[in-house]
Amino acid sequence: MTGNRVAALHGPGDIRLETRALPELADRDVLVEVRSVGVCGSDVHYYEHGRIGSFVVEQPLVLGHEVSGVVVDRGAEALKRQVGERVALEPGVPCGRCRECREGRYNLCRDVRFYATPPVDGAFARYVAIHEDYAFPLPDELSDDAGALLEPLSVGIWACRKGGVGLGSHVLVTGAGPIGNLSMQAARAAGATTVAVADVNVERLERAAQLGATQTIDLNDRQLTPEDGPFDVLLECTGAESLTGQAILALRPAGTAVLVGMGPDLEARIPVAALQTRELTLVGTFRYANTYPAAIALAASGRVDLDGLVDARFPLEEVDRALSANRENPTLLKVMVEVASAANREGAGLGRD
Amino acid sequence: MTGNRVAALHGPGDIRLETRALPELADRDVLVEVRSVGVCGSDVHYYEHGRIGSFVVEQPLVLGHEVSGVVVDRGAEALKRQVGERVALEPGVPCGRCRECREGRYNLCRDVRFYATPPVDGAFARYVAIHEDYAFPLPDELSDDAGALLEPLSVGIWACRKGGVGLGSHVLVTGAGPIGNLSMQAARAAGATTVAVADVNVERLERAAQLGATQTIDLNDRQLTPEDGPFDVLLECTGAESLTGQAILALRPAGTAVLVGMGPDLEARIPVAALQTRELTLVGTFRYANTYPAAIALAASGRVDLDGLVDARFPLEEVDRALSANRENPTLLKVMVEVASAANREGAGLGRD
Amino acid sequence: MTGNRVAALHGPGDIRLETRALPELADRDVLVEVRSVGVCGSDVHYYEHGRIGSFVVEQPLVLGHEVSGVVVDRGAEALKRQVGERVALEPGVPCGRCRECREGRYNLCRDVRFYATPPVDGAFARYVAIHEDYAFPLPDELSDDAGALLEPLSVGIWACRKGGVGLGSHVLVTGAGPIGNLSMQAARAAGATTVAVADVNVERLERAAQLGATQTIDLNDRQLTPEDGPFDVLLECTGAESLTGQAILALRPAGTAVLVGMGPDLEARIPVAALQTRELTLVGTFRYANTYPAAIALAASGRVDLDGLVDARFPLEEVDRALSANRENPTLLKVMVEVASAANREGAGLGRD
Amino acid sequence: MTGNRVAALHGPGDIRLETRALPELADRDVLVEVRSVGVCGSDVHYYEHGRIGSFVVEQPLVLGHEVSGVVVDRGAEALKRQVGERVALEPGVPCGRCRECREGRYNLCRDVRFYATPPVDGAFARYVAIHEDYAFPLPDELSDDAGALLEPLSVGIWACRKGGVGLGSHVLVTGAGPIGNLSMQAARAAGATTVAVADVNVERLERAAQLGATQTIDLNDRQLTPEDGPFDVLLECTGAESLTGQAILALRPAGTAVLVGMGPDLEARIPVAALQTRELTLVGTFRYANTYPAAIALAASGRVDLDGLVDARFPLEEVDRALSANRENPTLLKVMVEVASAANREGAGLGRD
Repeated sequence: MTGNRVAALHGPGDIRLETRALPELADRDVLVEVRSVGVCGSDVHYYEHGRIGSFVVEQPLVLGHEVSGVVVDRGAEALKRQVGERVALEPGVPCGRCRECREGRYNLCRDVRFYATPPVDGAFARYVAIHEDYAFPLPDELSDDAGALLEPLSVGIWACRKGGVGLGSHVLVTGAGPIGNLSMQAARAAGATTVAVADVNVERLERAAQLGATQTIDLNDRQLTPEDGPFDVLLECTGAESLTGQAILALRPAGTAVLVGMGPDLEARIPVAALQTRELTLVGTFRYANTYPAAIALAASGRVDLDGLVDARFPLEEVDRALSANRENPTLLKVMVEVASAANREGAGLGRD
Repeated sequence: MTGNRVAALHGPGDIRLETRALPELADRDVLVEVRSVGVCGSDVHYYEHGRIGSFVVEQPLVLGHEVSGVVVDRGAEALKRQVGERVALEPGVPCGRCRECREGRYNLCRDVRFYATPPVDGAFARYVAIHEDYAFPLPDELSDDAGALLEPLSVGIWACRKGGVGLGSHVLVTGAGPIGNLSMQAARAAGATTVAVADVNVERLERAAQLGATQTIDLNDRQLTPEDGPFDVLLECTGAESLTGQAILALRPAGTAVLVGMGPDLEARIPVAALQTRELTLVGTFRYANTYPAAIALAASGRVDLDGLVDARFPLEEVDRALSANRENPTLLKVMVEVASAANREGAGLGRD
Repeated sequence: MTGNRVAALHGPGDIRLETRALPELADRDVLVEVRSVGVCGSDVHYYEHGRIGSFVVEQPLVLGHEVSGVVVDRGAEALKRQVGERVALEPGVPCGRCRECREGRYNLCRDVRFYATPPVDGAFARYVAIHEDYAFPLPDELSDDAGALLEPLSVGIWACRKGGVGLGSHVLVTGAGPIGNLSMQAARAAGATTVAVADVNVERLERAAQLGATQTIDLNDRQLTPEDGPFDVLLECTGAESLTGQAILALRPAGTAVLVGMGPDLEARIPVAALQTRELTLVGTFRYANTYPAAIALAASGRVDLDGLVDARFPLEEVDRALSANRENPTLLKVMVEVASAANREGAGLGRD
Repeated sequence: MTGNRVAALHGPGDIRLETRALPELADRDVLVEVRSVGVCGSDVHYYEHGRIGSFVVEQPLVLGHEVSGVVVDRGAEALKRQVGERVALEPGVPCGRCRECREGRYNLCRDVRFYATPPVDGAFARYVAIHEDYAFPLPDELSDDAGALLEPLSVGIWACRKGGVGLGSHVLVTGAGPIGNLSMQAARAAGATTVAVADVNVERLERAAQLGATQTIDLNDRQLTPEDGPFDVLLECTGAESLTGQAILALRPAGTAVLVGMGPDLEARIPVAALQTRELTLVGTFRYANTYPAAIALAASGRVDLDGLVDARFPLEEVDRALSANRENPTLLKVMVEVASAANREGAGLGRD
């Protein structure tokens, strides 16, 4: 522990391995030795473009915000977590005092420090520090990868909560990538009895079907139509304008469309007349709040399958390969960076499994 | 009561006075002698264009759905209302059995029979029939005009409910016409401490200020900007695409935009990126449900001023003038058709007051 | 179909088989040939005591309100259901017009006509009539018994909705009878990851564990304590005062206690100080509303096991034995009256399986 | 500012004036020179009994938690408030990190530091310290007394939120003391059109009527009955068991009873049968969360009258008289301790006005 090995993004396509000082620990921080980190689409976007909208990488940035690891040190007042405890990290620490925090929607805190969002470094690193209340104990049932993937599962849980998915809901998920897949699984776990998944990627549609989708819609051949529904809830995970419009028209009266996927533009054409005559609700989502306990319980009880998403693993030294892997092979559902080996993964091969 | 005198729309701009048979009464219907009927923008739109979207006037249609009157007869099983009782009519009678009805959102019932919506006749008539449960007793505190205007007040109440307007809310109302004005008044009554109203019609802005708006925004000189806010709730009463977009951007994180005004197009450009990063909610509204008891209580207690909106009255024989009045004089806020004189309005002049 | 064979309760313990005229069909009614009827605790209570609280059996009453069957005739305007269609009946038909109905809580309609509630006859009969909108098509995946048991499942779904059971909820169910069991199953289906069931009947606890309870608490040995929790939601299915109090104290701050089981008294001692300092919610439930579509989908998809509750079946001629069976053998979880044999049950023995 | 003059409770009835060191300021604390402090029933209870339930005064405790004042110093990182700014204090500072805080119900934080709750000192003192985010700027429209009384107003706002009081609500408030009065005013401001207040203290009933109650019920002569209702919401501000039971029975189906007043016992007899057959909700309240912005806006806009509650003022040196005043004269609605004179109160007499 004399230094911290990190993979830092210096500019589009330019990832460099560096040794930095260990992160300093605030009073209630824990130091976490990183085990597994998932590659998120936002990491790939920063890697390829050096920015996401108004967030610009202006100095070397460590990417990675889907993280599990082991506590190896604690700040003076960090009493909840033990050294040696395996944890999953909720990667955004809000201020705890502003209006948004006080009202329980801390994901909208303006002063949140969120991993891998400029200028806050992320977790493609040997060690990271975090407030102990954002390091959740990982039960034995969950692998290191699963611990990391609680983060995208949180996005799916949040989408379901925002959409009011419940017993007997009929849900349409547009997009069969990791977020769409986990939104689908969360919807199933929440009692939805119809969960249709629509995409153009047939391999991903198959994966969705294997992991619980009750129906898949191949958009290569046709568009979504109202006859595909009516659905109670749309979980829109593509950000594609025209698909979003089609999907909204497949909602029943008083249905809800949850926007999860970010599109490329500030505005999109939305079928407002249908919103009005059917009293539809359209609601945006930004990250998640208060999801980790549920995510852990769902995964630990086997209600949601996280390991089943993982298609490839790369070591920290090959973060650039990890960030390129999905573009080279779009059938990969989830790519992980395996920073340290866990006992329960001994002998697991690195690189593409 | 040997016949029913009605003003029927035969085509754009073609209103004809006719004598028809009295409406037949179903078992639980009451027959109502009409007193006062408000002219709504939708009446004007049918009058001018012969249609609203997919609703087309294909046979002579009686317009008018903001109605008060007096019960003059009852069906065999109509036991709640008394002959002689003054009533306000909720002008849409839903089926009571479908999913929407069972779930309490009967405004979305597909089988609703709503006055002045083809092919259901409205209330520019001497007599109308309605199920007794949709004829609400009118307390003495309320004039006949106020009884009729409970209908647009219901729209404002519904908008406030959908937006979650409550104690200390900061509300922006776009549009200062009757619906905007009553949405503003409903928001005030619900505890909103900021209610800003924006419009280009300065006379209507003045009226809004007189009736309770805490701030008016004259859009002749400038656009709405985020600096006008942040607002908790937007009650959008214009249907204008670009104004809607500006207004949405003036919402605080987790704010709600309620679409009340219908625009001319099926789609509109919506700032979806802001919806997502701020987790805004955009919700459509269609008429209202379960608002009449609250509307009556608010008006009867003086919390909302309905009579203050009325600028002109015309007799049944001059429905065409009533339907043209606002176009000729845009400063008129609300035009009424006075079908029968009430004791409490004796000596009131007809035509423009 | 020349007459209707029914089992009518003439007084405590006095069930008589009678032949009555077929029920008359209102315009939108269907006539249903009864297949399977579940015996509910309320049927047993009427059978033993001739009354439940203020509901007194003053003239011969046909019991039974958990019903499946086949449509054999239709009223003049009943167009939705087909003759020959297998259906499950929602046994209460509300007025559709009163305030409660309009607001979507039709279970609180004062004018509801509910099977087997004096003076409305129930379904221990060859034929019953019901409004077509309350006869739900039964998918092939569901047996006749399962169709009947959608009714108590509805109670469990309603309890979960009232309690806000969702993803990752920790739920305590007190009482392991049919309602407790189905509440437990509904909670599981809604995403609860802890569902503890407490009872003194160890056989029923075992059944609960087999059907999905994550934990059972045997109350023979000990009381419930706060250390058993904290739970997010209590689904109280016993009506026992002291157990209810103990269970409430096992709730987390801001938790919800749902009262499902009716106790013998009008009042009960409730730990109000805990309600206040922890801001707990205590909410009563009465039957259910808008649950049948979800109940059907959950059972048809195998998320809930209804057939697994059935321990005994009796023919219509032995309704009195069916009503006594549970008292004689408290390990029986659910007793059914099999009025008519279905093709898919051919060869099934009658009497105790 | 060389020391801090405080009135400390050493035991039942034993208040002593002491000079202590000034409170130390944490980084984001402000030091506030106290202006006005309201006497709350809990202060009186501590004064008379030395304890409230499990909260026991074991070392000298400064009472007072309804506070306004002026910022006179700031911690190193307290940047929001200015020296010289007049502020109202939200007297409980939660941890900001625990589950309750994260979910927005910070009033249930176990680690909250709340003024005048052992062992945390309150505000019968020249100076107090508080985190800057809990010191709210006081607009000029509000007097120092009004600033202090935002605290009990917060209790009333919270009760209304918990009860869902809104446009056209029919509300029953039991208890006409300061909390009942402010709950009544908050209900009015939220759009309630019926707000009945019940008490045995006729002077307080008169005050309620003056400040907005639409109806008063004198419980000297009679009990509450269902015929007094039906009410949508009960705001129970007495903690009296039998009155609570009567009041619950006056609720409409699906109504809500909010428990605000604490009774003397851990348990109370509650009419659970009515809770069940009418699906009533009974919900406890503990302090409040996220109410100050609304409270300030309501008072500043004149929607709620706070100054109208004040009947007597005492200087810091006479805190014991302030704590005894209400027992000596039960007609006093609200007693204040005026620690420092404000410019806007020059010439105001001290002692009973």
